[in-house]
Amino acid sequence: MSFNTFGRLFRFTSWGESHGPAIGCTVDGVPPRIALSEADIQVFLDERRPGQSKYTTQRREPDAVKILSGVFEGQTTGTPIQLMIENVDQRSKDYGDIAQSYRPGHADFTYDAKYGIRDYRGGGRSSARETAARVAAGAVARKILGDDVKIRAGMVQMGPHGINRDNLDWNEVRNNPLFCPDTAAARTWATELEKIRKAGSSVGAVIEVVADGVPAGWGAPVYGKLDADLATALMSINAAKGVEIGEGMGAAALTGEENADQMRPGAGGKPEFLSNKAGGILGGISTGQQIVARFSVKPTSSILTPRQSINSDGEAVDVVTKGRHDPCVGIRAVPIAEAMMAIVLADHMMLHRAQCG
Amino acid sequence: MSFNTFGRLFRFTSWGESHGPAIGCTVDGVPPRIALSEADIQVFLDERRPGQSKYTTQRREPDAVKILSGVFEGQTTGTPIQLMIENVDQRSKDYGDIAQSYRPGHADFTYDAKYGIRDYRGGGRSSARETAARVAAGAVARKILGDDVKIRAGMVQMGPHGINRDNLDWNEVRNNPLFCPDTAAARTWATELEKIRKAGSSVGAVIEVVADGVPAGWGAPVYGKLDADLATALMSINAAKGVEIGEGMGAAALTGEENADQMRPGAGGKPEFLSNKAGGILGGISTGQQIVARFSVKPTSSILTPRQSINSDGEAVDVVTKGRHDPCVGIRAVPIAEAMMAIVLADHMMLHRAQCG
Amino acid sequence: MSFNTFGRLFRFTSWGESHGPAIGCTVDGVPPRIALSEADIQVFLDERRPGQSKYTTQRREPDAVKILSGVFEGQTTGTPIQLMIENVDQRSKDYGDIAQSYRPGHADFTYDAKYGIRDYRGGGRSSARETAARVAAGAVARKILGDDVKIRAGMVQMGPHGINRDNLDWNEVRNNPLFCPDTAAARTWATELEKIRKAGSSVGAVIEVVADGVPAGWGAPVYGKLDADLATALMSINAAKGVEIGEGMGAAALTGEENADQMRPGAGGKPEFLSNKAGGILGGISTGQQIVARFSVKPTSSILTPRQSINSDGEAVDVVTKGRHDPCVGIRAVPIAEAMMAIVLADHMMLHRAQCG
Amino acid sequence: MSFNTFGRLFRFTSWGESHGPAIGCTVDGVPPRIALSEADIQVFLDERRPGQSKYTTQRREPDAVKILSGVFEGQTTGTPIQLMIENVDQRSKDYGDIAQSYRPGHADFTYDAKYGIRDYRGGGRSSARETAARVAAGAVARKILGDDVKIRAGMVQMGPHGINRDNLDWNEVRNNPLFCPDTAAARTWATELEKIRKAGSSVGAVIEVVADGVPAGWGAPVYGKLDADLATALMSINAAKGVEIGEGMGAAALTGEENADQMRPGAGGKPEFLSNKAGGILGGISTGQQIVARFSVKPTSSILTPRQSINSDGEAVDVVTKGRHDPCVGIRAVPIAEAMMAIVLADHMMLHRAQCG
Repeated sequence: MSFNTFGRLFRFTSWGESHGPAIGCTVDGVPPRIALSEADIQVFLDERRPGQSKYTTQRREPDAVKILSGVFEGQTTGTPIQLMIENVDQRSKDYGDIAQSYRPGHADFTYDAKYGIRDYRGGGRSSARETAARVAAGAVARKILGDDVKIRAGMVQMGPHGINRDNLDWNEVRNNPLFCPDTAAARTWATELEKIRKAGSSVGAVIEVVADGVPAGWGAPVYGKLDADLATALMSINAAKGVEIGEGMGAAALTGEENADQMRPGAGGKPEFLSNKAGGILGGISTGQQIVARFSVKPTSSILTPRQSINSDGEAVDVVTKGRHDPCVGIRAVPIAEAMMAIVLADHMMLHRAQCG
Repeated sequence: MSFNTFGRLFRFTSWGESHGPAIGCTVDGVPPRIALSEADIQVFLDERRPGQSKYTTQRREPDAVKILSGVFEGQTTGTPIQLMIENVDQRSKDYGDIAQSYRPGHADFTYDAKYGIRDYRGGGRSSARETAARVAAGAVARKILGDDVKIRAGMVQMGPHGINRDNLDWNEVRNNPLFCPDTAAARTWATELEKIRKAGSSVGAVIEVVADGVPAGWGAPVYGKLDADLATALMSINAAKGVEIGEGMGAAALTGEENADQMRPGAGGKPEFLSNKAGGILGGISTGQQIVARFSVKPTSSILTPRQSINSDGEAVDVVTKGRHDPCVGIRAVPIAEAMMAIVLADHMMLHRAQCG
Repeated sequence: MSFNTFGRLFRFTSWGESHGPAIGCTVDGVPPRIALSEADIQVFLDERRPGQSKYTTQRREPDAVKILSGVFEGQTTGTPIQLMIENVDQRSKDYGDIAQSYRPGHADFTYDAKYGIRDYRGGGRSSARETAARVAAGAVARKILGDDVKIRAGMVQMGPHGINRDNLDWNEVRNNPLFCPDTAAARTWATELEKIRKAGSSVGAVIEVVADGVPAGWGAPVYGKLDADLATALMSINAAKGVEIGEGMGAAALTGEENADQMRPGAGGKPEFLSNKAGGILGGISTGQQIVARFSVKPTSSILTPRQSINSDGEAVDVVTKGRHDPCVGIRAVPIAEAMMAIVLADHMMLHRAQCG
Repeated sequence: MSFNTFGRLFRFTSWGESHGPAIGCTVDGVPPRIALSEADIQVFLDERRPGQSKYTTQRREPDAVKILSGVFEGQTTGTPIQLMIENVDQRSKDYGDIAQSYRPGHADFTYDAKYGIRDYRGGGRSSARETAARVAAGAVARKILGDDVKIRAGMVQMGPHGINRDNLDWNEVRNNPLFCPDTAAARTWATELEKIRKAGSSVGAVIEVVADGVPAGWGAPVYGKLDADLATALMSINAAKGVEIGEGMGAAALTGEENADQMRPGAGGKPEFLSNKAGGILGGISTGQQIVARFSVKPTSSILTPRQSINSDGEAVDVVTKGRHDPCVGIRAVPIAEAMMAIVLADHMMLHRAQCG
């Protein structure tokens, strides 16, 4: 995996900046003769698209994807698929005042420290806009996985407030603007988020992503672990600060007795598990249970409250960000999480087929 | 990265099973003319070595490393370094009774599901014995990093009990058998762990690993992120279920104001940060602050209490593990965590030098 | 390296088909703050561009490159550079008659055998049009190498006719439409090639590519050899069937005495070599002498003379190709050869810097 | 691919120096449940082993391979296979006199130029001894390919003398000490090589390697080409200076009419090819015909005739090599060529299965 390439066999290379002419990705290694159209991809991009509710940035981007290669007469050909999304609503002037100043908690400073240059317009390469490429690649990955593997995500915590697990219903996620699987929580959170938005503040979140229908045996030991690949996939998402599989950080508090997912003989020769503390992965290999992952995202650093900082000359400044931003980036992280899960699974499906036939 | 290879430029390939004749790794990409002896590596292996206290497995392994290649007259030559550790104290009979049964919460079942075969002796490739290879490779990575980068880890939570952050002293870690940076906590935990051990049970833990002296600018955007590489590095450690950078999962509960690590002009042209919620990484690139990572390990599945399971014929069985095991694998995870941090940093140091000169 | 990605640290991912909307590549790993404009790239694309003389295909493509990312205010930012070239002069009807038939000596059959589908328009992904992406990436590689490394190529054999080595003058290559470093040979060959073109036939060629100014020490032993990387780079060019370094296949006929490039103390502490049978590479590492590589290209399979073949139903057919084609693909292979040399050298320059500082 | 790792899915990492304690390789990605014993590998190592005739170096190495991991109860487990060969007959004193001098035509100078250090004993890492690791890995690759794919190689040119193609019989290769498929040529060459050996001189060679039974469809376009992978595989062999596929460099002299391998409907729905100029590969993908590759090896630089050179202080010296060496390294290159062909094919078999099912 290179700086801008993700995956082993199913792999995509992403490119583009927030305020350049376009962004996109090249998806390589796709099996041939899979039906694929721009509409198949657009449906997922529309979910991630900004400006769909007052809870997301008001930048207006159609995010219309174009397939430039790798598809012929509606089918994949096995050659690289170039997916391009033109940038339309760039207001670079919004960002002119932070061209020389570093937003605390943002990549402004580190890009300059590393490269000695940065495209400051809209965050350039560090913008969450790059995640559109992930969602596009994820749509292709889903096609490879087929209908047997079902991937769903939702926001399960906003700020300090978690959902009520008894209310969890994945089918509710697209029925509320917070992409939350708990309808009651979504209602309460909406009121709170509106206050945060109006205050020019922001708040973090936890997103959970699950995959059903993954057979036992995907993944690999040691440095090809399915959970280690999910960890890097999710941690690479903008603003992510923590990743959990199954019980996650909470596994530390368990005893061996509590943690052991007991098994009984099940239907069709498959074991029936009595619990899923493992989140569907043991020794880096899928158990056949639901794959369960979570990750936290920090609140966006683009806020109205002035923060102490420095500029590129090393002088003290106060920074206020007036650009259009998400009060809770966790909302739009939901389709991204699904995409990354799909990408990791498609890669491991192909790796498993290669080695084990 | 392949199934058993980790890293981009500084990379190592690990091999070996718990009860085979030996384990080891090939370390590739090492800069030339670095002084390296077996003693330089042995000191770290000795820390991970089992049987050093009553709190770790009683398997007696000298874990004596041999350098088989890549070092000439006491210096690295730039060619691959083969590090081999012979297995000495294999008691395969201990494991005979689980040859056909799957320990709940263990990789027994998934290896069989994937490969249709497994070396069940001591867990084979899924044994924590593989981590000796990581520790050996980590010792080489430290040599590349030099003395300016200081890496330290410790157990900061055992079961549900966390340390008192006011007591945190990294210099205390090697002064107690629990590798805990809080001496008072270590004393309390020791009593509790002794009870767990006698009961044939086990408990999880959280390990924190920090790196000081990393300059601003290591890492890379998007899919070469320093934090994403740390995530896969730590999640690939046996029993790991969650990974955090800086505030980690807790970042979800913060507001943008709380999360922003404010900056002031500091000494030598470097910024002074007023906090380190980011754990020393922004946009995938180091800030020059302390790098802070944490991961949870689940309790070992090898316990005396009978658990319901199935065997390889799909029949119901009860499983009891009588082999030698660690009541808290978090203890021996401490030197492994340091090794993985060193490996990721050495790789990124070289990547940064390659791209940015 | 993946199916459509080339290189380790300096790496590019190419995409696009002959008759799709566009082709291009993503260049990753480029050092920051290098001045780069579309004009810097266009100059090399113009050399490879079809339709420049009667000896190359009459397809009229402006091959105008657009930089879509990775460059800000005229300088590279260290992030991926997307280079796109729109296809303009696609006459898909030209190829309709070979949609179901396989041209002997062409990839038509093998693409179908592998994928069960192929974009037959203009050869799709197998078209030499893909090489525009290489030339574009090569222009970026040259920028990394700087002016000290000078790369030049030329056609040194057309059909059975080789140049007269006494006439070799690399400065003459761009002064004749055959890109030949021997002016006298170029004149004779032109007459012959005109006959071949009029007969609807084609002929093979040998291209030589040399690099001056490469310091001793680039490359690496065993599987990172500079010559092995050049071999794969040149063999991956469309129609290539053989690759030589230095004496190449002729090295077989030498004795140890003849083959040994003797050394004497030279200026500036560098050795002076008395010959260069090695082509500037020993043990996979550059010697500081001129790097010399050659490769053969077969004649294009698109000819007017009917050839026996089969169609996709397995039935016997006769194939005649009426599309626009090069009578000698060796001519346009010259800028491609230079590009691949530049790409391999830029990658190894960065690899050397990473490992050896 | 890293410096010392070769392959994508089937990949091996080689390590070790000529006069260190051992050499070996880790073979990763091997499918599970393949019967594999040390004897399966030893048979190929015995063919490459030095000291078997007066035409190869008189170093006496048993080259006994040990399987240290990845095989359980006689079957592969899918985990990495460590193959170790101990060095037995190291006479380091033979090489003491060239510790500070550079043999012309050898890697002595370039290793020092790159690394500033080299293990000069027996050539260290640059020794042909490394090829034992390739042969061992190749034996595993053959197991993956199974009996349907038949790989054979032989020396087809020694010095300036080629075989008579009418006499070519691959079954004769193991019946003469020159590993030549033309018995008559082998007899003549033997007399000549004996003279060369007695004179302390050396001579180059061309090795041809063919694979039968490869189905149409292995390989991939552009940068995953089967022929480009063979090119790097063969060029990475010690002393290789040229690589050819099918007609190779001779393809330059052909017309399009001559080069086109015409097809007719054949048995079982497969095409029958009327010739094989392509060497079984078109567009980087196998045609189903015999795969044909060739490579040249230069004469060894270790000769008795004094050659002008310099030492590590840059002073003029004369170099004479008295160590044990092969008068024609082409002989022992035969089993190595077979191994590299097997390794490339096994990798592509798995890649094809991954992408195309």
